[in-house]
Amino acid sequence: MQAHALNVTRSENFPEWYQTICRDADLAEPSPTRGSMIMKPWGYGIWENMQRDLDRRIKETGHENYYFPLLIPMSFIAREAEHVEGFAKEMAVVTHHRLKNIDGELSPDPDAALEEPYIIRPTSETIIGDAFSRWIKSYRDLPLLMNQWANVMRWEMRTRLFLRTSEFLWQEGHTAHVSREDALEETMRMLGVYRAFAEEAIAMPVIAGEKPAHERFPGAECTFSIEAMMQDGKALQAGTSHYLGTHFATAQNIRFQDRDGEMKLCHTTSWGVSTRLVGGLIMTHGDDDGLRTPPMLAPRQIVIVPMLRGKPEDAALQDYSAALAAELNAQSVFGDRMRAFVDPKQSKPSDKRWDWVRKGAPLICEIGPRDAERGDVTWLRRDELRENGRVKSCTAPRAEFIGQAADMLVAIQTSLYQEARDRRDSSIRTDVKTFADLESYFGADEDDGVVKGWVQAGWRRPQDAELKAVEDKLKRLKLTIRNAPLDQPGAHGTCILTGEPADETVLFARAY
Amino acid sequence: MQAHALNVTRSENFPEWYQTICRDADLAEPSPTRGSMIMKPWGYGIWENMQRDLDRRIKETGHENYYFPLLIPMSFIAREAEHVEGFAKEMAVVTHHRLKNIDGELSPDPDAALEEPYIIRPTSETIIGDAFSRWIKSYRDLPLLMNQWANVMRWEMRTRLFLRTSEFLWQEGHTAHVSREDALEETMRMLGVYRAFAEEAIAMPVIAGEKPAHERFPGAECTFSIEAMMQDGKALQAGTSHYLGTHFATAQNIRFQDRDGEMKLCHTTSWGVSTRLVGGLIMTHGDDDGLRTPPMLAPRQIVIVPMLRGKPEDAALQDYSAALAAELNAQSVFGDRMRAFVDPKQSKPSDKRWDWVRKGAPLICEIGPRDAERGDVTWLRRDELRENGRVKSCTAPRAEFIGQAADMLVAIQTSLYQEARDRRDSSIRTDVKTFADLESYFGADEDDGVVKGWVQAGWRRPQDAELKAVEDKLKRLKLTIRNAPLDQPGAHGTCILTGEPADETVLFARAY
Repeated sequence: MQAHALNVTRSENFPEWYQTICRDADLAEPSPTRGSMIMKPWGYGIWENMQRDLDRRIKETGHENYYFPLLIPMSFIAREAEHVEGFAKEMAVVTHHRLKNIDGELSPDPDAALEEPYIIRPTSETIIGDAFSRWIKSYRDLPLLMNQWANVMRWEMRTRLFLRTSEFLWQEGHTAHVSREDALEETMRMLGVYRAFAEEAIAMPVIAGEKPAHERFPGAECTFSIEAMMQDGKALQAGTSHYLGTHFATAQNIRFQDRDGEMKLCHTTSWGVSTRLVGGLIMTHGDDDGLRTPPMLAPRQIVIVPMLRGKPEDAALQDYSAALAAELNAQSVFGDRMRAFVDPKQSKPSDKRWDWVRKGAPLICEIGPRDAERGDVTWLRRDELRENGRVKSCTAPRAEFIGQAADMLVAIQTSLYQEARDRRDSSIRTDVKTFADLESYFGADEDDGVVKGWVQAGWRRPQDAELKAVEDKLKRLKLTIRNAPLDQPGAHGTCILTGEPADETVLFARAY
Repeated sequence: MQAHALNVTRSENFPEWYQTICRDADLAEPSPTRGSMIMKPWGYGIWENMQRDLDRRIKETGHENYYFPLLIPMSFIAREAEHVEGFAKEMAVVTHHRLKNIDGELSPDPDAALEEPYIIRPTSETIIGDAFSRWIKSYRDLPLLMNQWANVMRWEMRTRLFLRTSEFLWQEGHTAHVSREDALEETMRMLGVYRAFAEEAIAMPVIAGEKPAHERFPGAECTFSIEAMMQDGKALQAGTSHYLGTHFATAQNIRFQDRDGEMKLCHTTSWGVSTRLVGGLIMTHGDDDGLRTPPMLAPRQIVIVPMLRGKPEDAALQDYSAALAAELNAQSVFGDRMRAFVDPKQSKPSDKRWDWVRKGAPLICEIGPRDAERGDVTWLRRDELRENGRVKSCTAPRAEFIGQAADMLVAIQTSLYQEARDRRDSSIRTDVKTFADLESYFGADEDDGVVKGWVQAGWRRPQDAELKAVEDKLKRLKLTIRNAPLDQPGAHGTCILTGEPADETVLFARAY
């Protein structure tokens, strides 16, 4: 056995480690469609479990799911483009509705050119706003709280599995309200839902805060985000929640008759998270042996590997394993049925073990003839895989293992969170006080082996041209301002950029 | 109160009744995107529940979910087109990846024309087959059992909400096997899963059988379907399962090394159901007062309407209703948590009642001041809405209602199924023995008010040119052969088309 189950470690080459884990844990792979990926059962299963958990939270806060069309008429986009500075134009355009065999080659049929092209939704603001303008008549129709689970597409030149793909899966919430206060309250409520979801389900600590002006969603009055720290110290924007003011309501004529009889513009919000979160999960919990999947989201929480040898006694092992799985599956954990699974493959038991280690099944039970005879279970805890350089396994009577399985899964979930949180907290520097310090911290040779975390410091919150200058200055260090955390310290000290008294505290980081 | 909650009845005008119910039960509406619909929470919620139930059945039979790209390179389609006669060419074609402002108008950017256009998947056989050809190496990799939940698009000229839309949601299963026997077994297994799902979850009786040769999926060796009878007597193909032989494996080079060391072609299958099932549910269970949603799929199974009057005592009604909902939601039904909901709207109680009647909430509780005082619950059962022309309501002490709620939901599910099954069974004629009889039965004036059901009769199973002649003959009567039921009678009698001895028994029907 090699020192680690992956052939590249995080410290050797983090980007290559990421690609390796996606492949070796069989999470996803590139597809023949440029920039799109094929999500495989372990990766897609994690997304399904994220979806189920988050969907429950979205519904519990009063939202309902709708499904809007994939294709958006180009005129809708044009209407938005007029209103939105910074409007992105990289989108897939549908221009024909038929293929035809022309001179022996399949081609778009010139006779089937669409009068008005369609765009594959990069987001659904425009078509949903159009419906809102038809549906909303009176204050009695408000708030209108909707959500949609969908695939969307933004033509990307440089893609990376889960983190940046042309097509991705997401949820997009869109809501309309009578007032600024109500809409802002909604914006913050959903930010809170995202924070709780990220920390509880993904076991991924995040910092919720407001984006600086130049990082806002085009057209938003304010944008909030949750930011997670990856193991290479970079930030991942894991979810955003926008208060859109009356900007989109103006563009799309979303008005209501108020109690006083007057017609008023709605205040709207939008918020979303995507399959990018699977990338965040990998870079938060993966280690040099593969992924460690948080039990709450693991497609299979307990994998039972009967140590089959192609001999007659295999049957007894299989029966013993099946009975064990059935008993585990009758139990609950995290308010849901437990997910145990017997790996039926005929391959070498040690290959199967390492497959599940790389996938990061939280508990891996290896059932050999001696276990079956004695009525024991031998298992590995993926989060405590090695002790003194050797793989650590435990054995206990079967009833004892079954009795403590749920507690172990909860303990793994907690320990993954705690480990990530400790790492993050110890990688946020608060002692970088001047731009020169910032420069020397982030400007040093990238390969010095030290993980560069985040810097938390005060700034004067410059505007317009001054802000642009700051942005450029940071860009040279490949830095961005992630957000101004909601939990602000009592005092902000001096501005790291100007030395003047600071107005708020923000996070500086490199980012995905 | 008018005689019925909808302003058109099934017998007056079935197609208009269908449109009315989609609108009045707030299931879906047309969208600005030609041929696509907006699914609203009650309609989409039914689909979500269908998905959850069917997904469980698909996973229980050993399949895993993947997610493949939305866009398929045109060359993949070309490869399939060469192999598949009857290949449909109506598909959305993506030709550009950027919009540009040209002379003040947003247009596809000529500099961003794609070298190879992409097609929005009409189905994913080609791109999944391509992956299979890479993934499958040995008999050890088989069977490969995958499923995908996705949106697909087929450009349709005449569309109808849920039943025929350009974009629709579906699941598509694709599997590869070592032998014809294994693949056929899989084909039949999934047909059985669909049958059980339709009958148990949708409460929609179906007849499973094999499609005649001319109704096969292009490229399939045999196609099986489940067929449901709508209340206008027409058939709805509610799901299909195909054995594809080695046809697609040849086109896509899906081979495996067998135990004997030889390279062999895989035998493949595919099977799918779509949002069309929501249309089937509506036309199976709707009545002149709106939808009757089977409790197993109803987004809200028990709706509690506090009879609010804008008076101080409203607060007590709301509290009483909330407590009732909480107690109901702590219970289980159909192996899942019960779904009770308090309608918080301030509108007139009778409007709320009729809204929920039109949506078809299985149980509607109306809580007035007297109920709250006495600790009672007054409710309507949507499947037994009227008695002697009047709306029928029951009152019982709250604990008694709670105690029997689950049983009532189960009883409603059963009674909806039984009613649909009795209607279907009494509308299949087995006494139509000659083509002249068939002609006079279906040829009669369509507006004679009698629902034309199906005809079950023997045929000689003609082939090729002879089959084509039969098809044309039936087309003049707007008839199709739905399938040859798996449950064949002992004797087939004579062929309804030729009078010769029949080879099998088939179903003739008009269809959606």
